[in-house]
Amino acid sequence: MKEAALLQDSIEEAFREYIETWNHTAPHNLYRPVSYALAAGGKRLRPLLVLLGYQLFRDDVEKALPAAAAIEIFHNFTLLHDDIMDKADLRRGEPTVHQKFGENSAILSGDVMAFLSYRFLLKTLSEHTPKVVQLFSDTAVEVCEGQQYDMDFETRTDVSAPEYMEMIRLKTAVLLGCSLQTGALLAGAPEVSATRLYEAGISLGLAFQLRDDLLDTFGEEATFGKKIGGDITSNKKTFLLIRALEKANPAQRASLLDWMNRENFDREEKITAVRSLYEALEIKEETEAQIDRLHTTALSLLATLAVDPARRIPLETLCEGLIKRRF
Amino acid sequence: MKEAALLQDSIEEAFREYIETWNHTAPHNLYRPVSYALAAGGKRLRPLLVLLGYQLFRDDVEKALPAAAAIEIFHNFTLLHDDIMDKADLRRGEPTVHQKFGENSAILSGDVMAFLSYRFLLKTLSEHTPKVVQLFSDTAVEVCEGQQYDMDFETRTDVSAPEYMEMIRLKTAVLLGCSLQTGALLAGAPEVSATRLYEAGISLGLAFQLRDDLLDTFGEEATFGKKIGGDITSNKKTFLLIRALEKANPAQRASLLDWMNRENFDREEKITAVRSLYEALEIKEETEAQIDRLHTTALSLLATLAVDPARRIPLETLCEGLIKRRF
Repeated sequence: MKEAALLQDSIEEAFREYIETWNHTAPHNLYRPVSYALAAGGKRLRPLLVLLGYQLFRDDVEKALPAAAAIEIFHNFTLLHDDIMDKADLRRGEPTVHQKFGENSAILSGDVMAFLSYRFLLKTLSEHTPKVVQLFSDTAVEVCEGQQYDMDFETRTDVSAPEYMEMIRLKTAVLLGCSLQTGALLAGAPEVSATRLYEAGISLGLAFQLRDDLLDTFGEEATFGKKIGGDITSNKKTFLLIRALEKANPAQRASLLDWMNRENFDREEKITAVRSLYEALEIKEETEAQIDRLHTTALSLLATLAVDPARRIPLETLCEGLIKRRF
Repeated sequence: MKEAALLQDSIEEAFREYIETWNHTAPHNLYRPVSYALAAGGKRLRPLLVLLGYQLFRDDVEKALPAAAAIEIFHNFTLLHDDIMDKADLRRGEPTVHQKFGENSAILSGDVMAFLSYRFLLKTLSEHTPKVVQLFSDTAVEVCEGQQYDMDFETRTDVSAPEYMEMIRLKTAVLLGCSLQTGALLAGAPEVSATRLYEAGISLGLAFQLRDDLLDTFGEEATFGKKIGGDITSNKKTFLLIRALEKANPAQRASLLDWMNRENFDREEKITAVRSLYEALEIKEETEAQIDRLHTTALSLLATLAVDPARRIPLETLCEGLIKRRF
C-alpha cells in the first residue's frame, strides 16, 4: 500500500508523459491547448481519489492510472468550457485557454479532451469496463446539469439551500464520487462497497465545496492564494448568501439586497458590510456545522467498508485535509 | 429485412419520443436546446447507416436503434459547436442553437449531447460494448481533429489535395464508417466484415463530401435548397479550389488569387469568374471521376461481404442515391 504523496508522484509522472506526447501530436492547434491546460497542474484530487479507491482493495495501483488520468482530463475539459461561459481570464494564476488560444480553440480542444478521457478510461479493459463507462457517462451528464443550474442561479434571488446543495452535488460532488467508485470497480470491489464509496465521495464533495464558499469569504488571503471576497462582490449564489437571504430579518434582507443591486460600490466596503451581515446571522458557524456533518457521514461510510482499517487511513487523511483546508 | 424508408420511419419515431422526453427534462435551459437541435431533422443519414449495417447480418434491427440514435446525437453535438466556431446563423433554414439560445447554451447543451450519445450507445449492452465504445471514442477524437484541420486550412493557400482528402476523411467520413461498423459489430458480424464496412463508409463519406463541394458550385439552386456559390464567395478550401490552384497556369493562378484577395466584389461576378476558371481547368470532370472511383471502391467492399447479395441492396441503393444526389 502506498501513501498519498507517492501516488501523487505517479500521477504527475504519468501526466508529464501524456503532456509530452500531446506536445508532438498533430494537429498542433488542437493538442497544444490540451497540453497547456493539463500542464497547469492543480490539485490532481480526482485521479488521487481513483487510486485511493482502488488501493482500498488491491495493491497493483498502477493499473488504475489511465482511468485516474481519464477523470482528470474530463475535469479539465469542464474547466475549459466553464471558463468560456464565465468569461474567466485567469485559472491557477495563468491565462485561461480561451484567453491564450482563442475561444474556438477552447471549445474544440475541450471537446477533444472529453473524448480523450473515454480513450484513457478504455485503456485497461476488463469485465468491469461497461459499468465504469456507464458511471462515467452518467456523471458527465450530471456535471453538465450542475453547470446549467449554477448559471441559472445567477439571475435568481430565490434559490433555496436544498436547491443549492443539489447544484453542487451535480457540479462538483458526483465527480468525486465517480472517482472513488471507479477505483473500487476497477479493483473488483463488491458492488455494495463501490456504492458506499460513491456516497462517501458525494459527502466529501459537498463539504469540499462548502469549504470553498467559506474560504472565499472568511479565508486568509495569505494562505488562500487568491483574493478574498470575490463571491461577495460578484453576488455569487453561495451557500452563505443563500442561507443569509433565508435567515435575514426584513431589515437585514433589505440591506443585503441593496448591496447586491448596487452597480457602483467600494469593493472593501461591500465585503465588510456583507460579512458583518453573515456574522450577525451566524452563517459561518452554520456552514462549519454542515461541513462537520458531511465529514462525519463520509467517515462513517468509509468505516463500513469490509477492508482492513489500516487501508482506509490514506483516504481518511486526505478527506480530513480537504475538508479542513485553509487554501 | 426492411427497406430504408421503413427504417427511417423507425428512426423518426424514436427521435419523436426522445425529443418529447427532453422537452420535459430539467434543467430546461440545458435540454430545450437539445430538443431544438434534434427536432430540426436533417437527413438522419448516420443512424440509417447503423441500421443498414446491422441489417446486413440480422433482422431484429430495433436492437440497434439506441446506438443509431447515439451517432445522430453525436453528429448534432458537432454541428452545435461547429456553428459557434463558424459563426453560422442558420442551419437547415432555422436559427442555429447559439443564435436562438445564446453561445453558452450552445456550448453546454452541445457538451451534454456528447455524453448523452454515450448513454444511448450503452443502452444495449453486449459482449461487443467495449469495442463499440472504443470505435466511437476514436472516431469522436478524429472528428475533432478534422474540424481543427478545416479551421487551420482557412488561413492557408497551400493546402494540397491529399491534405484536403485527409481532412474530410476525419471531419466527415470516419463517422459514416463508424456508423456502418457499429451496426455490424452490434449484429455480431465477423471482425473482417465489420472492418470492410468501415472502409466502405470512408469511401462513401469522401464521395459524399466531394459531391457537396460540387453541388455548392455547380448545383442548381432550385433542387439544392441553398444558395449556390457560398464556397466560392467565402474562399472555402474545397477540393475544387485546391485542385484549381494546383492545376492553374501562372495567369490562371494569379486571377484566382486575385479574386480570393478582393475584399469588395460583386457576388455573382466572382462566382461566374471562378466557375469559368474551374471549367477551363476541367475541375468538375476531375471531381466527378474521383467520386466515381470512390463509389466503385465502396461497392466492391460491400460485394466482398459474406452475406446474401439481396441483403446488400438497401445499402447499395442508399450509396448510389447519396453519391449521385442533386441536393
